Amino acid sequence: MEGSNGRAREGFHTADGFSTDGGFHAGGGLSSERANGLHAGNGGSRTAGETITCKAAVVWGPGEPFLIEDVQVATPQKLEVRVRILFTSICHTDLSAWAGENEAQRVYPRILGHEASGVVESVGEGVMDLKEGDHVVPIFNGECGECGHCKSDKTNLCETYRVNPFKSTMTGDGKPRFFSTARQQPVYHFLNTSTFSEYTVLDAACVAKINPAAPLHKMCLFSCGLSTGVGAAWNTADVQQGSTVAIFGLGAVGLAVAEGARVRGASRIIGVDVNREKFDKGKEMGVTDFVNPNDYAKPVHETIRSMTEGGVDYSFECVGNLDVLREAFLSTHDGWGLAVVLGIHPSPRLLPLHPMELFAGRKIVGCVFGDVKGKTQLPDFVDKCMRGVLKVDGFITHELPFHEINQAMRLLAEGKSLRCLLRL
Amino acid sequence: MEGSNGRAREGFHTADGFSTDGGFHAGGGLSSERANGLHAGNGGSRTAGETITCKAAVVWGPGEPFLIEDVQVATPQKLEVRVRILFTSICHTDLSAWAGENEAQRVYPRILGHEASGVVESVGEGVMDLKEGDHVVPIFNGECGECGHCKSDKTNLCETYRVNPFKSTMTGDGKPRFFSTARQQPVYHFLNTSTFSEYTVLDAACVAKINPAAPLHKMCLFSCGLSTGVGAAWNTADVQQGSTVAIFGLGAVGLAVAEGARVRGASRIIGVDVNREKFDKGKEMGVTDFVNPNDYAKPVHETIRSMTEGGVDYSFECVGNLDVLREAFLSTHDGWGLAVVLGIHPSPRLLPLHPMELFAGRKIVGCVFGDVKGKTQLPDFVDKCMRGVLKVDGFITHELPFHEINQAMRLLAEGKSLRCLLRL
Repeated sequence: MEGSNGRAREGFHTADGFSTDGGFHAGGGLSSERANGLHAGNGGSRTAGETITCKAAVVWGPGEPFLIEDVQVATPQKLEVRVRILFTSICHTDLSAWAGENEAQRVYPRILGHEASGVVESVGEGVMDLKEGDHVVPIFNGECGECGHCKSDKTNLCETYRVNPFKSTMTGDGKPRFFSTARQQPVYHFLNTSTFSEYTVLDAACVAKINPAAPLHKMCLFSCGLSTGVGAAWNTADVQQGSTVAIFGLGAVGLAVAEGARVRGASRIIGVDVNREKFDKGKEMGVTDFVNPNDYAKPVHETIRSMTEGGVDYSFECVGNLDVLREAFLSTHDGWGLAVVLGIHPSPRLLPLHPMELFAGRKIVGCVFGDVKGKTQLPDFVDKCMRGVLKVDGFITHELPFHEINQAMRLLAEGKSLRCLLRL
Repeated sequence: MEGSNGRAREGFHTADGFSTDGGFHAGGGLSSERANGLHAGNGGSRTAGETITCKAAVVWGPGEPFLIEDVQVATPQKLEVRVRILFTSICHTDLSAWAGENEAQRVYPRILGHEASGVVESVGEGVMDLKEGDHVVPIFNGECGECGHCKSDKTNLCETYRVNPFKSTMTGDGKPRFFSTARQQPVYHFLNTSTFSEYTVLDAACVAKINPAAPLHKMCLFSCGLSTGVGAAWNTADVQQGSTVAIFGLGAVGLAVAEGARVRGASRIIGVDVNREKFDKGKEMGVTDFVNPNDYAKPVHETIRSMTEGGVDYSFECVGNLDVLREAFLSTHDGWGLAVVLGIHPSPRLLPLHPMELFAGRKIVGCVFGDVKGKTQLPDFVDKCMRGVLKVDGFITHELPFHEINQAMRLLAEGKSLRCLLRL
């Protein structure tokens, strides 16, 4: 679950060096070769119905290094799917869970990871919309399609399968599907997904089927960060052509918001970050102006208001810092400005807004997974990506083999990568 | 400007006795007789172009009794209108300004009042949409029709004529149009309107023309409280047929919300108030259920959630108390619930909401004058009233002659009246 660019703990003014010349050298056709290698023709998976032993990156305690070890992955039960993960990347929510920042959410041993792409290996009883061989993207915020929430056009928070950081087992029977071969004990799930494993079991509601012609290594991005940012621009804010946008925090989510706003034809996309190197990357995604708060004595919102005849139409808080949130709110135009909160706010402090400030017509809303209904909407996102409407190449800045996951975590923690793709 | 049911200072749990058997005995045809008496046939006003000396209720200092005295009302200047006020009523914002609660907004001597109806006596240069004899309703939140805000369909906050509690003179030249005959000094304006006077001068942007066949004594209500509540239901929340509603605070605004929700076909309208007598009045306006917080050990939002399968679709905070605001927010359904803030919040405390609470999909918005664009939208409200779609009779609980304004203030301050109509 992407929601912060990871600087929440340090506050907004921590400079972090961001490298744009990372080592992304994924060859073409990689995904197809791998996917084909999984299956014995049309006769179904060779492993269906059997427990699979494979490699996974297991965390045994808060902040302990990932251990690549053998885990047994049980067969998918009713309404479940077992997926061969081919690519996964790391988002700040993984970092946070790895460190055990929220003590109430600590569960170990655990397989983290929620941003990935892969191929269905086998399906459990009652799964109608997925079959072996389907190319899929796990979604941590599921969509059953049947509940009142799924049938409402106002929310993407499925009654049963919505994101739940406290959940660590399968929905059906409350048990895990992972088992550590070496230590002979259960290993727990994470965010409906657990993608740091060659195979994982998910509720079918948490698996979005995508066009098999789409390059799977890029599709990984739609699993969380990219969809969150693009969805915030398209669904939550519904950015209009010619409108003005300010984005606070140019991490992967903030840049995905920019890309979404660019596609919608926003006339001005102002990126706000204390790291000016981010602007170079931001330009690719349509950022037109860069504001470094450190360059001004006055508050950022005053700078932005003076740049935009009173404020932007939409602002996006992608940092997870309450002072930034207030600036984002005040940067919007009175009467109709909308501030979208994407950042994860660990502080116990309440919203730094006075109720009477709502009377100037500025609005504030929260946004989970870009208000995207994953199974319904991701195929369209993927289609737009394939047609070149939505450009995603810039988001993958590094690539490493799966067993170097600890190095990938460091790249993200140190702000050196946007997304480091891990090949499984 | 109606926004609170006046219990903000005492908190939500102050019981206030509300009388429903007030002395409203306005005879039919009253308004037409009075209106006709103003004019010398079709030849225009006898007083046009001249300063008018008339009676007004002047406040000379915070909390001092209104003095009915002679004031000179200057001719309307460019883009201004002089109106013969025939009916006015009192809202809690008048009470607050009379008491001088907000020291920064104190200006005396002053003519308060902003909820009224009357007839145009004469118009200044450049006024195209109003003429002598027009039946009108003053609007404290004006609409110039030309600015970016007026042209936007997202706001009713006109750039120039929006509600401004700090303003005490005319927009055009920054001077007042009132002059005290006895004390030979200027008397200041209030909320773009100053209706506690037989004649007042307003910016044409702050005068809504209505159907002359409408009964003027009832139309007074559209000037503030009724439009605020109905507009909150129709414009701000856009209450849908079959939806569920909770209203916190059953004063005039809260009951107007109920009436608006009733017209829209809400299936359930839950009134929340510590005074159970309000429920009898509420039933007239469509309130279907009554919750007295004092009857339950658990928080109100838990009661409402259990009554409505998880929460209402819309809640309205009409009290001006932050604890009530939080209950109103939490009473809405996760995923799509909308809390509309109507109460005026004098406390310096910030919003009692954590940013992560926005991620459950509940929204909160402020609402000024029901998001009504007065000149554009009030004619339709009036039309719905005349056709019996919108029922407003229950809101006028008392009637008194203008010179008994101090008694009318007491009725409101003591919670004994919803609206006391003053005849001028």
